[in-house]
Amino acid sequence: MKIGVLGTGMVGNTIATALVTKQHEVRMGSRSAVNDKASQWVSENGENASQGTFADAAQFGEIIFNCTKGEHSIEALMLAGEKNLEGKILVDVSNPLDFSKGMPPTLFLVNDTSLGETIQAAFPGAKVVKTLNTLNCLLMLNPGKVANGDHNLFICGNDDEAKKTVKNLLVDFNWKPDNIIDLGDITNSRGTEQLLPIWIRLYGLLGTGDFNFKIAK
Amino acid sequence: MKIGVLGTGMVGNTIATALVTKQHEVRMGSRSAVNDKASQWVSENGENASQGTFADAAQFGEIIFNCTKGEHSIEALMLAGEKNLEGKILVDVSNPLDFSKGMPPTLFLVNDTSLGETIQAAFPGAKVVKTLNTLNCLLMLNPGKVANGDHNLFICGNDDEAKKTVKNLLVDFNWKPDNIIDLGDITNSRGTEQLLPIWIRLYGLLGTGDFNFKIAK
Repeated sequence: MKIGVLGTGMVGNTIATALVTKQHEVRMGSRSAVNDKASQWVSENGENASQGTFADAAQFGEIIFNCTKGEHSIEALMLAGEKNLEGKILVDVSNPLDFSKGMPPTLFLVNDTSLGETIQAAFPGAKVVKTLNTLNCLLMLNPGKVANGDHNLFICGNDDEAKKTVKNLLVDFNWKPDNIIDLGDITNSRGTEQLLPIWIRLYGLLGTGDFNFKIAK
Repeated sequence: MKIGVLGTGMVGNTIATALVTKQHEVRMGSRSAVNDKASQWVSENGENASQGTFADAAQFGEIIFNCTKGEHSIEALMLAGEKNLEGKILVDVSNPLDFSKGMPPTLFLVNDTSLGETIQAAFPGAKVVKTLNTLNCLLMLNPGKVANGDHNLFICGNDDEAKKTVKNLLVDFNWKPDNIIDLGDITNSRGTEQLLPIWIRLYGLLGTGDFNFKIAK
């Protein structure tokens, strides 16, 4: 599958690399057509790896991953271009973290709104699927790294077919289908994004990102 | 131990009942000295169960449990009386849930504040320990009801000795010490109270409150 990954940071790099290992063709997008971090990533990941602007990556992908920082996501998606997102699945991995007042961060969209639904409202033609935002990027496509993969991933979005496609992609990375919890429509991003305040505190306490939420029943 | 339980609803009733079964002397407090629900509870729970006003219950207890609804908590604690809380452990089980705009509720204190720290600020002489607010009341003092008790409870507060006392009380109800995660000071209530938005969505999805968060490592 052709996939666009927006963002060249650790999250974008980790996801893009994992996708290439599964033979997907991945174009990493950034503000400029040639980016140092993207160039490094391309050089390390063979012929299925390419780079371009946000718009190039969005146009290239059948599925687009938003791996930009939450504070820049709307701007990056504007640069990606509404027409390049039209009708496509937009996997939103970002969180509305506000570090401007120091650690731990607060959320700049919270409570009666969320970043996931704000993105959906700004790009009504995209099929936004919010997932992967509640765990460290090293676990996102490698759930077996902790507890034998016996923990949960949340997913939400307005388009059932889009969620199904993303679930299949996740299962290909060893997420057990029963461990992927579909919360419903995109407003449920409010629930998953508000996991960040305790996630960050646990990260500080445990001194590692190698943990995830599991719903014990 | 003498314990005051503020609130006669399902949370207060369940906690008060569990405490009586462990031979604690429990006084349930409400707005009035005699309350129908408290009277019923007293009649069912033997000589260690009594009732009174919020102030009676707070004066009686060495430890006070705030089991009132979040929206009424500050008022109930004002009625309990600052002097009756002075120097005592105040276990805050409440959440700042706002149902006024329908389901699912939002939080009326959130992000850069929380109900736990608001209560601590309003009653600086009390030793507020926030815990038990992230799971169904039927599991609070009966963790073995799901997953053999193999899930987590969060605790936070400014007074280490107070947290230790509360932890010991919880261990007496079969919480495994390693499963009680001390997040630090009372501002960490922001983390645990923001678990409610996803907890409520999971409650709707699963159709039961018989679940809890576990941190898979």
